[in-house]
Amino acid sequence: MIDAEDTVFLLPGPVKMHPRVLRAMSAPALNHRGPEFKAVLEEMRPLLRYLFGTQGEVAVLSGSGTAGLEAAVSGLLRKEDKVLNLVNGKFSERFHDLCKVFASPTALAFDWGTPVDPAKVAEALDGGGYRAVTLCWNETSTGLTNPIGDVAKVVRERDLLLIVDGITAVGGLENRMDLWGIDALVMGSQKCLAAPAGLSAVALSKRAAESLHSETSFYTNLKAHVEGLKKQDTPYTPGVPLYLAFLEALRMLKEEGLERRIARTRRLAEAARAGVLELECELYPDPAYASDTVTAIRYPPGVDDAKFRTILREEHRVILAGGQSQLKGKIFRIGHMGICSFGDLAAGFLGIEGALAALGHRFDRGDSVEAIAKRA
Amino acid sequence: MIDAEDTVFLLPGPVKMHPRVLRAMSAPALNHRGPEFKAVLEEMRPLLRYLFGTQGEVAVLSGSGTAGLEAAVSGLLRKEDKVLNLVNGKFSERFHDLCKVFASPTALAFDWGTPVDPAKVAEALDGGGYRAVTLCWNETSTGLTNPIGDVAKVVRERDLLLIVDGITAVGGLENRMDLWGIDALVMGSQKCLAAPAGLSAVALSKRAAESLHSETSFYTNLKAHVEGLKKQDTPYTPGVPLYLAFLEALRMLKEEGLERRIARTRRLAEAARAGVLELECELYPDPAYASDTVTAIRYPPGVDDAKFRTILREEHRVILAGGQSQLKGKIFRIGHMGICSFGDLAAGFLGIEGALAALGHRFDRGDSVEAIAKRA
Repeated sequence: MIDAEDTVFLLPGPVKMHPRVLRAMSAPALNHRGPEFKAVLEEMRPLLRYLFGTQGEVAVLSGSGTAGLEAAVSGLLRKEDKVLNLVNGKFSERFHDLCKVFASPTALAFDWGTPVDPAKVAEALDGGGYRAVTLCWNETSTGLTNPIGDVAKVVRERDLLLIVDGITAVGGLENRMDLWGIDALVMGSQKCLAAPAGLSAVALSKRAAESLHSETSFYTNLKAHVEGLKKQDTPYTPGVPLYLAFLEALRMLKEEGLERRIARTRRLAEAARAGVLELECELYPDPAYASDTVTAIRYPPGVDDAKFRTILREEHRVILAGGQSQLKGKIFRIGHMGICSFGDLAAGFLGIEGALAALGHRFDRGDSVEAIAKRA
Repeated sequence: MIDAEDTVFLLPGPVKMHPRVLRAMSAPALNHRGPEFKAVLEEMRPLLRYLFGTQGEVAVLSGSGTAGLEAAVSGLLRKEDKVLNLVNGKFSERFHDLCKVFASPTALAFDWGTPVDPAKVAEALDGGGYRAVTLCWNETSTGLTNPIGDVAKVVRERDLLLIVDGITAVGGLENRMDLWGIDALVMGSQKCLAAPAGLSAVALSKRAAESLHSETSFYTNLKAHVEGLKKQDTPYTPGVPLYLAFLEALRMLKEEGLERRIARTRRLAEAARAGVLELECELYPDPAYASDTVTAIRYPPGVDDAKFRTILREEHRVILAGGQSQLKGKIFRIGHMGICSFGDLAAGFLGIEGALAALGHRFDRGDSVEAIAKRA
């Protein structure tokens, strides 16, 4: 049996956590209505704005990224509001499913692994009647980053609301939310911030913050969460240990610097892509849109997903992800966001080389690790 | 400044956590779609049934008790369904507010500190047209336990659904949910189980489990959570560290034994009430309905809430709660559920004696602590 606590942990989220974050999380119980927790929330609010690069309002919810998306959609839209969902992967499909509960959505689908086409978005919107558009900025399921600036431009030209799933983007990809005009941007704690899973945060444009309603939500009532945080409070009992860990991870982000973290994430992604070439493998998404936080790789012919990941896990202690839905068995995915290091990535590729070789795939051993080391 | 990590922690939730629980929580990241987390969920499901004392279905949500209540209400009721909310405190008021979003509620109010009257419930229900009743079993805000068996009887005689907030009851008060015929019972992780805040669990009767729908919920979709747990899975990313801590707390409950924990909680409550008498203070609720998990005490004349709790905190390192809403400044509240010991309770009363004396209240010093020690 492998030691689950001592692995090379390269999932596309949750990602490796720093011991500082783990220690912060394991503090004894504290009063979430007392001065210590008020201090936590007071320190957190400006750090969240720093993370999102916004002057707008922010909120934190005790729930996964999906809770954050629900808060944004249910707070900004009503059942009768038409919303165009841009869909090119599993998470944008889920975003569409979520909108079915709280609004009147239409999906505009693109092939998985190809980007959302802003011209087609414009065409669909001019068909008319929409109030909002949803975009999954970084499709974790396909390792693809959608052209958010171009999509945002099309949406803003028509003065519609833009609600963005930035769960594996915020803190890892270059972000100009105020400039682009994103109305709601959602992040998840266990991704680029490298905090534990279980919290999400939402940043809002001024007009979005002013138009929030609470007719169809209660636990994910975004208005109550925004107003709460302004007063260093939460509407319901917060998941305190997760907040303590989240704050420590925000401090670590600030210490590194957001720009430096994003640049480091990009360099890790470039190294990962260089490594993939040396493995004689191919990226799954259109390479021009390959994500800098998640690399998705097609299995070479003859390599079985379950066998590959079992060998990786049990012989090399490397944890990475397979494909989801229609990509199950076809791709594997590496996360290199948060506090991932070049050393982690090299150790991961060392294991990948071993597992691919064990399953008969042919390539020059050591070259992928060398390619990563050269870029470190 | 006091040391927030070394206190006598007697809030009515969150409550003191055992070091075993804190250590379990601080494990490194693990794959929530991998075998280790499946093993966590597999072990958790029967322990949850043990906790709830039910043969029915159970689910865990990554969210506070409010998320669990929302899951039950949104999954069992529709907007047009009439529901009678029994209200006699802050948390039953919140339950009523929640029902406004997902159903058509009517509040039947009783004075705070007095129990729900089953005869009045019967009368209101016979006015007709109701599909469901909500009850807050243990009102944390007033330290009162409602007569759940008698209320359940009235509801069952009319064949209506009974949805119960058991957040500070489950694991601390004697529970016969299958016998009483509760359709949905909700607990919160940071109360009688003594796990960290941030998770809730729901237990369902057979008919409730079979009638769940997902029309108005997404994150709190109870059907998806119930089906997920059967397959050792979760519909969305779970707050993994909270699950690890929750499982460890469930193991500790099993080791102690549910009946023994409930009996110990009752003895602690009896000791606390004996201590209150020795302080020359009065319980806030009707003494015949005083809760065994939370004791609410009226401030004696001349004792200021803020001063009292500041002295307690800063001079005695005792953390307890004040009143909420209409009871702010009028009462203080002590939690004695979970892993609270007689020693903790005695240390708490030692501090309470000191703070009351410092503020001029007269009583015989030492007697409340003696009263607790005698019952240990």
